[in-house]
Amino acid sequence: MNETIPGTLWEPDFLLNGTVPGTLWEPDGGDGPLILVAHGGGQHRGSPAVVGRARMLVAAGFRVAALDAPGSESPMQGPAEGLAERLNRINAEVAARAVPEWKAALDLLAPDGPAGFWGVSMGAVIGLEVLAAEPRITAGVLGLTGARPDLARRITVPIEFALQWDDELVSRESALALFDAFASAEKSLHANPGRHTELPRHEADSAVRFFQRHLRPA
Amino acid sequence: MNETIPGTLWEPDFLLNGTVPGTLWEPDGGDGPLILVAHGGGQHRGSPAVVGRARMLVAAGFRVAALDAPGSESPMQGPAEGLAERLNRINAEVAARAVPEWKAALDLLAPDGPAGFWGVSMGAVIGLEVLAAEPRITAGVLGLTGARPDLARRITVPIEFALQWDDELVSRESALALFDAFASAEKSLHANPGRHTELPRHEADSAVRFFQRHLRPA
Repeated sequence: MNETIPGTLWEPDFLLNGTVPGTLWEPDGGDGPLILVAHGGGQHRGSPAVVGRARMLVAAGFRVAALDAPGSESPMQGPAEGLAERLNRINAEVAARAVPEWKAALDLLAPDGPAGFWGVSMGAVIGLEVLAAEPRITAGVLGLTGARPDLARRITVPIEFALQWDDELVSRESALALFDAFASAEKSLHANPGRHTELPRHEADSAVRFFQRHLRPA
Repeated sequence: MNETIPGTLWEPDFLLNGTVPGTLWEPDGGDGPLILVAHGGGQHRGSPAVVGRARMLVAAGFRVAALDAPGSESPMQGPAEGLAERLNRINAEVAARAVPEWKAALDLLAPDGPAGFWGVSMGAVIGLEVLAAEPRITAGVLGLTGARPDLARRITVPIEFALQWDDELVSRESALALFDAFASAEKSLHANPGRHTELPRHEADSAVRFFQRHLRPA
């Protein structure tokens, strides 16, 4: 990636464990709490959704790191497998494989924590795995999934959770049940009309303010 | 009321129709879009919840008007009537009686609109009546009720709706169904843990930003 974010210091890509490509964005001065941003299915760390969130976070005083998610090697399970079913299976596989990579990113960039995590859809399934495993993550913005309430029950840090009211890939009931499952004393559900990819822009603004409340950049 | 809000111009109370007491708060310069704030059950226009919201809105460039709600003359319906049932009945009665008063407030303070409406609990039931009846209201922050989905189906303006996940007076199902019923293309549900009176402070911040997005004070 060669994009330069205005007003920020561009850092070269880094490699985790010699193989996992990552990008670090830093505000002027290079300081600030770290937010990990995980992309959704079919995206990568340079996708507009990731770069846009990074730009907003950097403007608010955060450092931002994004990794490319592991590829899925899972074959189709035959014609009977529906799209939502297939996505759930692939997301779960990718998320489990991604955990050590995000831990390595923390070791490199915020070894003593605290840090935030922001991911929706497949990125949220990764986030559920990472938040359940990693005490250095102290605040998370997740959404657009109803998977893994078992992991949510182990998560106690503040969560902002986005749900699309007309999501064609995630049932409303499963997403409400996932929100209910978080053990966090502080959690907010934000639901808006629209399909899976129609999360409104004001939810990104809200996510930045959530991280500002909980991670207090200078 | 004699309280002075720092940085604002204090206006004397006004009377609507010769009888309904109201208070107007104005920012420096006296201009800005109007937000109507309806108090909850057992409160009045000078209650801390109302004055606190007025202070936040005035600081963001809005004018704010609050009225005292009509009293309820509804007697207890006997010992079999539960608290939630009784509150629903009284809220509905008060809300219906309040509509002409809020229309008169608009006639006085923003005769050509647009204006916003902010009310939770009993104030939200008043808001449902007023929003369904009054095209000059172009954005509403409501919450803490599951009553009157019939009115919500007639409301098409942007809505931010607050739900307390552990509300002892409002069933989760009724509040979700009310949110679902709004005909608004733009609506956001914000759910947080806690009981009826434990709406977190950051939801008030969010409400002010919602009105800033939709009513654009200078």
